[in-house]
Amino acid sequence: MSAFPVDDRNRIRRKPQRGSYEREVVYAILDEALYCHVGFVEDGWPIVIPILHARQDDTLYLHGARASRLLKHVAAGHPVCVAATLLDGLVLARSVFHHSLNYRSAVVFGHGRPVEGAEKREALRLLTEHVARGRWDEARLPTPQEEEATAVVAIAIERASAKIRSGPPVDDEADYDRPIWAGVVPVVQAFLDPIPDPRLPADIPLPASLRDHRRRSRLP
Amino acid sequence: MSAFPVDDRNRIRRKPQRGSYEREVVYAILDEALYCHVGFVEDGWPIVIPILHARQDDTLYLHGARASRLLKHVAAGHPVCVAATLLDGLVLARSVFHHSLNYRSAVVFGHGRPVEGAEKREALRLLTEHVARGRWDEARLPTPQEEEATAVVAIAIERASAKIRSGPPVDDEADYDRPIWAGVVPVVQAFLDPIPDPRLPADIPLPASLRDHRRRSRLP
Repeated sequence: MSAFPVDDRNRIRRKPQRGSYEREVVYAILDEALYCHVGFVEDGWPIVIPILHARQDDTLYLHGARASRLLKHVAAGHPVCVAATLLDGLVLARSVFHHSLNYRSAVVFGHGRPVEGAEKREALRLLTEHVARGRWDEARLPTPQEEEATAVVAIAIERASAKIRSGPPVDDEADYDRPIWAGVVPVVQAFLDPIPDPRLPADIPLPASLRDHRRRSRLP
Repeated sequence: MSAFPVDDRNRIRRKPQRGSYEREVVYAILDEALYCHVGFVEDGWPIVIPILHARQDDTLYLHGARASRLLKHVAAGHPVCVAATLLDGLVLARSVFHHSLNYRSAVVFGHGRPVEGAEKREALRLLTEHVARGRWDEARLPTPQEEEATAVVAIAIERASAKIRSGPPVDDEADYDRPIWAGVVPVVQAFLDPIPDPRLPADIPLPASLRDHRRRSRLP
């Protein structure tokens, strides 16, 4: 896969050695993150809203109620910024100055558009599969009325960058002799045992979409 | 504690029953989230960047390198939006339409200012303690040169809202009879066993700041 174009908007300025513009790096972060933060501008103010997303190629899909301010704004074609972040660890250095976090983040810039018709149905499938792979084939599918009540928007990824920090702390050479604990506390997003709905009959087994859900946890 | 003022900027429009403007609700989310997403406007474009934060009363502190575009922008007093989100679960309904996520999110609006002097030192302490409580008393403290190389900014929380979804899926009544598994997959941020730095002598014990780090995981 190729890299995204770079300009002043998406260029990584601080610690560029941690940055990447490669599609495969940006895609991997967007696909692992369950939700993203969408930024837009309204009356001169930035607004940042968390929302579920799904990606296909250079397109991000979002969905929600027709009345959603965020979705109306994106559908209108205004500039949008989307950030997805995965926290991987607390980095405890010997000095306060070199404390940090390990993370993988993607920041995307583009313009939105409304999505209708066959693409809308496919976007709803991608968004459902993003929550739990295989779920589209298990759940009751949307009726025409439900589809009508749902707004789907697409954001074309025009610029993007990823930034990644990993590994142990990096201290000043003179500090390595200090008797101060240093290292990393790994942080993972863990998926725990599913809790059946209170009204679920006892004879309905766990669905295929959840059978490997613990694998997503990256637990040791 | 009292509630934040409400206007068109921070009013919850979709599902207002899930919203809150109470300081204690907003504070709890900001304090549990290890990092936030900061949104600002540059040349008409929204920009969203993930960053570590710390809170005291109605002030959020951020820090980083002096050259940081984000910090320069916030210090200049432009309008800023900060979102912090905690994912609590995947909500699998019987119908695709009612799938959702359980989450707690806070969205904050305000203006930034630069921080210097005694408040800067205190902000650095708060930011370090946000990573691991007690760490300020364990690590080598910042030198005057390190403090000079670090930019600290404050954002006054002028408007804020929280939004929370919790509990099982809510399906259409007619769907409850379908033989489709429904329920919640709890998601937690888990802190795993600390990994000592490769250059750490074996006789340096785990510090007090990490002794209860697993407690932060909300694991069962």
